[in-house]
Order: sequence, then C-alpha cells, then structure tokens
Amino acid sequence: MSLTPDTARTLRRALATAVVVPVVPFQADGSPDWDTYATLTSRLIDNGISVITPNGNTGEFYALSPAEARQALETAAKVASAGGGHGAELLAGVGHDIATAIEAARHAQDHGAQMIMIHQPVHPYVSAEGWIDYHAAIANAVPDLGVVLYIRDERRTGGQIAALIERSPNVVGVKYGVRDATRFAAVARDAGLDRVTWLAGAAELTAPAFWAVGAHGFTSGLANVHPALALGMLAALRNNDFQEAMREWEAARRFEELRLADGSADNVTVVKEALAQLGLCRADVRPPSRPLPPHIKEEISGILKSWGLA
Amino acid sequence: MSLTPDTARTLRRALATAVVVPVVPFQADGSPDWDTYATLTSRLIDNGISVITPNGNTGEFYALSPAEARQALETAAKVASAGGGHGAELLAGVGHDIATAIEAARHAQDHGAQMIMIHQPVHPYVSAEGWIDYHAAIANAVPDLGVVLYIRDERRTGGQIAALIERSPNVVGVKYGVRDATRFAAVARDAGLDRVTWLAGAAELTAPAFWAVGAHGFTSGLANVHPALALGMLAALRNNDFQEAMREWEAARRFEELRLADGSADNVTVVKEALAQLGLCRADVRPPSRPLPPHIKEEISGILKSWGLA
Repeated sequence: MSLTPDTARTLRRALATAVVVPVVPFQADGSPDWDTYATLTSRLIDNGISVITPNGNTGEFYALSPAEARQALETAAKVASAGGGHGAELLAGVGHDIATAIEAARHAQDHGAQMIMIHQPVHPYVSAEGWIDYHAAIANAVPDLGVVLYIRDERRTGGQIAALIERSPNVVGVKYGVRDATRFAAVARDAGLDRVTWLAGAAELTAPAFWAVGAHGFTSGLANVHPALALGMLAALRNNDFQEAMREWEAARRFEELRLADGSADNVTVVKEALAQLGLCRADVRPPSRPLPPHIKEEISGILKSWGLA
Repeated sequence: MSLTPDTARTLRRALATAVVVPVVPFQADGSPDWDTYATLTSRLIDNGISVITPNGNTGEFYALSPAEARQALETAAKVASAGGGHGAELLAGVGHDIATAIEAARHAQDHGAQMIMIHQPVHPYVSAEGWIDYHAAIANAVPDLGVVLYIRDERRTGGQIAALIERSPNVVGVKYGVRDATRFAAVARDAGLDRVTWLAGAAELTAPAFWAVGAHGFTSGLANVHPALALGMLAALRNNDFQEAMREWEAARRFEELRLADGSADNVTVVKEALAQLGLCRADVRPPSRPLPPHIKEEISGILKSWGLA
C-alpha cells in the first residue's frame, strides 16, 4: 500500500510545528532510564508538543546500541499513543546501512509510527546519485509511511531532493540542518516549496529567517526544558509577528549558543544539565559527549532563572 | 591480561607499512561475494601486503549490516591466518556506539585479530573529553589487543591523543586522515612521536610529506588494484629516497584524484571499477556511493594501461 494523497497532506500539516527530539536520560549505572524517558516525553506532549522524534541526535542516537534504540522507539510510541486527547505523532529516527534503516522503519511502523526521519548517511563517501539511491531504497521499502529527510550537507541541491521526491512520493518533509537561510531558500524552491513541509533543522536560532523564506516549522531541543518558549516562537511565526518571534529568539539565544559552542560538543549535555537542575532527570551523557565544567552549569542556572523556571 | 611491552613493540613495528583495506565485492543480487573477497584479500597478501584491515571505509563498512561486517572480519581472518608463509596481521575496523564497538573488537579477537582500528565516532556532537572517553572505553575493554586510532577531525590535538594513550597504553598506532602534513607534524610531536606508529591516513598522495615529518607507514586503497605501486612507494620512503617516492606519487596521482573528487564521492567506486576492468570482481557499490559515468571508466582504463596492468 502507498500513502494516499489525503494521508500525505495530513502528515505534511502535522509536521508544520515545533518538532522535538526527547533526550534519553541515563541511570547511575549508565543504562537508559526508560521510566524517566517516558515521563519526559509525556511532559512534552502535555505541554503542547505534537510531533515527537525518538532516536534523533538530541536522543544520542549514535551512542545507543541497536537494542536501546528499539526500546526508545517503543517507549515513545507507548506515550504518544496514550488516550485522553494527549497523543502526538511519532517521527521515528532511522539510520545506518540501508538494511538496518529499513528494519528500524518497519519496527517503528509496527509500533504505530506514521513517519520516519532518515538520518544523514554516516558513510564518508557520499555521491549525489548515491544519496538519492540511499534514501529511495529506504523510503520505497515503507511506501505507506511518511518520510522526512534530514539534510546536514550543503552539497545537497534542490534538484537532488526533487529527483528523490519523484522516486519516493512518500517524502512529506525535509529537516534542513545547514544554517544558511539564503541557501535554504534556494534549495527549497528548487526542490518544490509546496511538495513537502520544510523545517528549520538547526532549531530556534535559525527559525525566524528560515520561516521568512519558506519553512513552516522547526526542530527544537530547547523544548525539552522550556516547551512554552518554543511554542511561543511558533505562535509568533504563525502570526507573521517577527518582532515577537525575535523576542523569543533573544530568550533562547544564550542557551542555544552554549549548545553550539566548539562544534556543538555540548549540544545534548546542556539540555540534560538544565533538566537535572529542574529535578527532572540525571545530567549524564555518553561519550563522545562530556560532563559540563562548573562555569557552564552556573550559566545554565542563570538562564533557567531568567526563564522563570528555577 | 594487558598487552606486554614486547607485543606492543611487535605490533607497532608491524604497522609501519602500507596498510590496506580490501574492498567488499557484491554479487548481481547486491549481496556480498565472500568468495571473491577472500580471493582479493589473498591476492593482496600474496603480493606482499602484510596488514589487512577488514571493515575500513574502502570496505564500505557503513553500508554493511552488522551481520555482513562480522562476515567480512571472519573471511579476512581465515585468509590472513592461512599457512605457507603467506599470513598477514589483521587490523579489524570497529565503530558505532561503544557497546557495539566492544562487541566487534571481541569478535575480531576471537577470530585471531591482534589489533583493532577504531573508526572516528559518527556521533555529531563530539567534545574533546568525550572523544578521549569514547576511545578509552573501547580500548580498555580489550586491553590485550593493540588499538589504532583513526583521526579525520582537525580539532583533535596532540594533547588529547597523549591523554588517551596515558589511559589506554594498548594504543599502538594512529591513522591520521587529515590531509595537512604540517598540522600532522605538530599533532604527532605533541602526542609523542615514538609512543605509537603514525600512519598517513589519507593514502599515497599524502605519504611522502607525512613520512618526512614522522609517519612510518600509510594506508592504501590503490593497493587493492596495484599493490606493487604502493609497496614501491613504501620501499622508496624507507630508503629515504624522496625522488623515487615522488615518481610513484606521479604514477598514483590521477587515480587518487579521481577517488578524491567531489568530497571523495567515488572513493570506493574507482577502486572497484579498476578491479572489474581487470576481471577480478564486479564494479557494483552500495549507496551512497554511485556507479561511475562512462568518461571516468575510460579514464581508469587509461590509468591501468599506463600501469602496465591492462
């Protein structure tokens, strides 16, 4: 079965929001704390987040074993499908070699996911044609799932994305993670602005500029800590109120800059440290992330106070 | 048990050579052709290659499923341990999350490998401290194996490498894949030039400059096709004959430039196409590599003729 045009439209609309990757908290012995993962994911949904991405980079996907990645999906699926009007769409991260990615996509589908996000290939030798083939092989193996591309390589052109959409009509979204809004404007137009939902893939700080040129959503790690801030920016952008969006931008700025420093070395750690200070989970991360030095922890305390959360 | 100083010395000496990653040929149905993989690996050893790296990037490690990667190791191990004076050292590529990498290292050890090469982490958020922790966790789990680091990130400093060697004395080599010979000179000195064997990790074209400043070996994909050329360059460098080494450099140049073009998009494909033209295996690669356009195939024919192989 293939995705019907109606379902595709529904998924494209669902994606036009703040898409959040929940962090995977660890216990003192280093193993994942699935109960707390479920609680954190519930908290996101209760606070209005409507698309949850298990196995994204903020969930330390590449530091999880295959069995742990499956458990992350299953735990998020259970929470997202909970009744009482508090459900959310699952956008399941999949990656690695093609066979492994397809297996993960089918596993996600078996647990109720309607969409997958294909991670950028980790293979060091990526050709344009091979990039298309890689994604088409995965997308075409699950034709009734919506597929979101995750682009972090500025060499990917709109023409390449268009060629992929031609072969895989179940592509419903693109998370564009290169930080250049002007390049994004050209790529999205060349690929077909209205064929998919475009997300600012490098989160809040890129969201206003990307929105102005064609994005209708953005991804957020910050929302793990302060969902109202991400949703406030989303509401402002939907109202075409860039002045208000830039007030949220200023509120998000220092937190995001801490996450971006040194090639994003502390991307996840900053989020987990903030959650730990709020008493929501332990701060531990797995290598190649690192524990934070005291001066950054102090700065996070100040940010939480400025947000009225501490 | 830990690596004895004697064994460590033996392994460091073994690494000071042309280290070759064999390609993994595919059958018409896309599955690996293990018989031909064994034949190609035997051909390398018969032609004088003494260190074989199954599951390196030229072996399309990131396009293999976990089961296929295990099979690659087992097949190479069987060939490398064959009698008749034609054995070779195995340097087994391992990677992904820490648990998966340790599992692969133990599997390699069970099949006779004395050394592993730890791939650069694919995790997008790499801190300096976490980079050390990641490698130490893997190296310390297999203390009686020699460990080779594979560095492709110019942010890694000699100080970081020294700190890792301090924690993991079984590190016996570093494959330095950043192409800047002057940076390499500084990094190797800062880390300790004589503590490990340094390899020019970006192959023949970088080998002479790296050798001049401290490398005692290099990695080679070209040797899959023309082992005598790689070994000729090695012999010249060992004789301190840079004029002769640069003659081999000129012979290798165009082939390597084809492999490097467009961000190394055709890195593996060029090697496989040359082997296919010699009748040794099929040219097929897995996405995100791509089949070659006709004009590149023709250029490869010319190179093979110039090498006296066609």
